Amino acid sequence: MRYVSFGDEPAVKPDDFFMNEALKEAKLALAEDEIPIGAVVVCKGQIIGRGHNLTERLNDVSAHAEMQALTAAANFMGGKYLKECTLYVTMEPCVMCAGASYWFQVGRIVFGAYDPRMGFGRLNQKITHPKTIIEGGIRENECAELVRSFFKSKR
Amino acid sequence: MRYVSFGDEPAVKPDDFFMNEALKEAKLALAEDEIPIGAVVVCKGQIIGRGHNLTERLNDVSAHAEMQALTAAANFMGGKYLKECTLYVTMEPCVMCAGASYWFQVGRIVFGAYDPRMGFGRLNQKITHPKTIIEGGIRENECAELVRSFFKSKR
Repeated sequence: MRYVSFGDEPAVKPDDFFMNEALKEAKLALAEDEIPIGAVVVCKGQIIGRGHNLTERLNDVSAHAEMQALTAAANFMGGKYLKECTLYVTMEPCVMCAGASYWFQVGRIVFGAYDPRMGFGRLNQKITHPKTIIEGGIRENECAELVRSFFKSKR
Repeated sequence: MRYVSFGDEPAVKPDDFFMNEALKEAKLALAEDEIPIGAVVVCKGQIIGRGHNLTERLNDVSAHAEMQALTAAANFMGGKYLKECTLYVTMEPCVMCAGASYWFQVGRIVFGAYDPRMGFGRLNQKITHPKTIIEGGIRENECAELVRSFFKSKR
């Protein structure tokens, strides 16, 4: 994992750095008037898949950021599984996306904002792959604020 | 819902008829050396989406029959939701596909064979949409036998 340093400033932790990349994707979604959720898949310090929510553009309620990023990453790898990869996503994945991560055998999932209503964590059973490590709350406020202000603007 | 009758024989129940269509899809998968699972989506007696497992061909572990059929159906409808539709699938959907059916707000899911290991029914919480009606075990033996003999041939 590479650390990214900007001159005299303290080095940015990889998780923060890659979550920022996921946030960039979320902002692309926002620019397209989509619910601003973004994701990247990282393997050995390299981004191998990116995606943002495209449910409106594709008129497909299943076109979540994670699904785009995971299939792009698997495509890049030319293989089936993403065992050595980390999925960074600005919002806690839903049951569908967590279920997809099972099939891809994603090594680690790092998410930003918690989603108590639709997030997979509300289930009292583990539905991700047994080997998948989960971490939530990375850059939580920024990730949550993007979605919050989007819905506020729609009211 | 239309009933389909063949001459003097008793009318075929719609669920049997459409599950047979899903079985046809499963056999297409088998012909391509894919795990033989098939699905159709039906709205007002008309098939508006078909799909079969394409995980090998697409090199995408998430390319399940249900995902193909649901996105095809939503595409056909030009709308987001499949509230008045029935998803027929030869195997109990996995967590990912059941999670997708939530977003599509599928009216009814009819599946063939139960899948105690990967089926969504193993969860002790409902993950499909609150309004989704679920029925399992339609043409169960045929649906299960297809998959069983596929895996047997691989050993």
